[in-house]
Amino acid sequence: MSNSVILHQTKQGLDVYTLHYLMDEVKAGIQYAFQTKNRLTLAISASGHGGMEACLGNILELGETVLIARCGLWGERAANMAIRIGAHVEFLDTEPGVAFTLEELEAAVKRHRPTVVFVVHAESSTGMKQPLQGVGDIVHRYGGLLIVDTVASIGGESFYADAWGVDAVYTGSQKVLGAPPGITPVTFSPAAEKKIFQRKTQVPVYYWDMTILGDYWSCFGKSTRVYHHTISATLIYGLREALAQLAEERLPNSWARHAAAAMRLEKRLAARGLEFFISNPENRLRTIISVKVPPGIDWKLVTQRAMKKYKVEIGGGLGPTVGKIFRIGLMGVNADSEHVDRVWEAFNDGLKYARTAKL
Amino acid sequence: MSNSVILHQTKQGLDVYTLHYLMDEVKAGIQYAFQTKNRLTLAISASGHGGMEACLGNILELGETVLIARCGLWGERAANMAIRIGAHVEFLDTEPGVAFTLEELEAAVKRHRPTVVFVVHAESSTGMKQPLQGVGDIVHRYGGLLIVDTVASIGGESFYADAWGVDAVYTGSQKVLGAPPGITPVTFSPAAEKKIFQRKTQVPVYYWDMTILGDYWSCFGKSTRVYHHTISATLIYGLREALAQLAEERLPNSWARHAAAAMRLEKRLAARGLEFFISNPENRLRTIISVKVPPGIDWKLVTQRAMKKYKVEIGGGLGPTVGKIFRIGLMGVNADSEHVDRVWEAFNDGLKYARTAKL
Repeated sequence: MSNSVILHQTKQGLDVYTLHYLMDEVKAGIQYAFQTKNRLTLAISASGHGGMEACLGNILELGETVLIARCGLWGERAANMAIRIGAHVEFLDTEPGVAFTLEELEAAVKRHRPTVVFVVHAESSTGMKQPLQGVGDIVHRYGGLLIVDTVASIGGESFYADAWGVDAVYTGSQKVLGAPPGITPVTFSPAAEKKIFQRKTQVPVYYWDMTILGDYWSCFGKSTRVYHHTISATLIYGLREALAQLAEERLPNSWARHAAAAMRLEKRLAARGLEFFISNPENRLRTIISVKVPPGIDWKLVTQRAMKKYKVEIGGGLGPTVGKIFRIGLMGVNADSEHVDRVWEAFNDGLKYARTAKL
Repeated sequence: MSNSVILHQTKQGLDVYTLHYLMDEVKAGIQYAFQTKNRLTLAISASGHGGMEACLGNILELGETVLIARCGLWGERAANMAIRIGAHVEFLDTEPGVAFTLEELEAAVKRHRPTVVFVVHAESSTGMKQPLQGVGDIVHRYGGLLIVDTVASIGGESFYADAWGVDAVYTGSQKVLGAPPGITPVTFSPAAEKKIFQRKTQVPVYYWDMTILGDYWSCFGKSTRVYHHTISATLIYGLREALAQLAEERLPNSWARHAAAAMRLEKRLAARGLEFFISNPENRLRTIISVKVPPGIDWKLVTQRAMKKYKVEIGGGLGPTVGKIFRIGLMGVNADSEHVDRVWEAFNDGLKYARTAKL
């Protein structure tokens, strides 16, 4: 994708022709971000949770089996949604912060023969990155389709939808991309598209039924678009600009920038004697650094101090990690040395403050 | 609701406390706009179509009957969604542009005994306003709940959710309110709330399950909020400002302004010999004026001319009215004499142009 496609400047108000042009540009930008040639690529007019439910709701049908890799909050959430669809839910469980191995995956797939396997690439509740190479091959070998949650990774961690055999994937607009929240990029592989059009039952939700939403986004090569819902022009403009910035920087440069920022912070954390929550360094996300709450420290004092004195938001745990870890996000414009230094100052001062408060 | 509640200025970045404060303000503004005291009042992070599907999906269950008043596109759309839920769909049909009477409604309700009756207040595909007084009483007398679509009316047409016995209602943020699209105000009556919590099955969609979304919006009087999804701060700020403006102007003034603008345009249309699509003047929307395409006129030439030369968007028909009518929207900031004069100039010139092109 050339930058010029994405960076086209519109010169008039947002009439319907302009909107359709913008949608095509956004689609091209999303294809680039996911590294895919999928024609069924678009943005859902909803938050990342909507993207998760749209991927599950389109591919998975009543009575089918979904295997969910659960190692934090998001696998749990996917199960909540799959049960509502009437699917049969099986889990591939690992400890929070521990990735599954290809052997473990193959054993589970062999046993449950799932229609869909659901994997979280960037488990933001623990700071863990699940390696994805080889995952698609195993899922496909047993006739399944692979859905991947990349809400907190796209743009900050290398990801190749086509090369890795991912059949459906969604990401967050407001994470690494830095666009406003409320709009969620998704893409579906040709195999996923085939499954959607061969469903025995209708997609249970009109709002994200890809068989009609795909026509609005002109994904199926038809000459006319069919109105589906009112897309948020505000959010489309924001997402387009974010995707344009990513295309300008190029993905490898963005990945390298996030890696450098994470390393800079990790060095300081390690020097301060803090312990990383993810024991395997290869599975530590570059976008969210998680460290254990030191013994005797009230984590809330740390995050409150950082927010009040520095206007820096440091996360506590989420779901299974509440009270156990701090989560420090370094995404998008925040992934540079200046921001790392600022967040380190806020965090370090928060720790000191919490130690003093304790004494 | 006092304006001061709505117009509170936040002085810091959007930390979670500020966001929660904003959400409470938005809730109060939505209660005012709908004229309701319902505690289960919030904004869905989706377009108006999401609001429609959320209302149906929360109240209506598999196997239950919904009676849909169908006189244009939106009743048809509601049926599409209800079928996906597995509901049994019955229709109260009238000709496009013709309102149902209370007698017709009662006969249909008596016959079908629906769990839910779905009515469109402002049928934007025809420009028709459905009178709502007495509708709720009939629906309730037979044990049903009333859902009303007010996407194109709230703020521009009088509406009283509580006084009229409406059990669930949603509106468009980007119509009269003039906020960005992508976020949809909804409210549920105590009776609707009771039905939702007494469902035999789970709400089929996590994304708009009111039993948990209501906890995020702090609707059920609990002391803590439970994270549900990431609300779009961009859209929340926009909606809050739009609701604040409505509270400042006051509803009766906004209704009167829309009525005056519509009358100004109608006078000119009538003087030009154009025929209104809605034969009963009392059922003509003040927010969308619909006139028949005069014989021998290519409607597309008119709307294209208006867009190209004047940057004014005049709608053609929608759904059952395609090719038959023009739809002229006068909503929000556009409902004043200056905009009426501008749109009239564009429309009139478009008509002249289309006549010339024909000769």
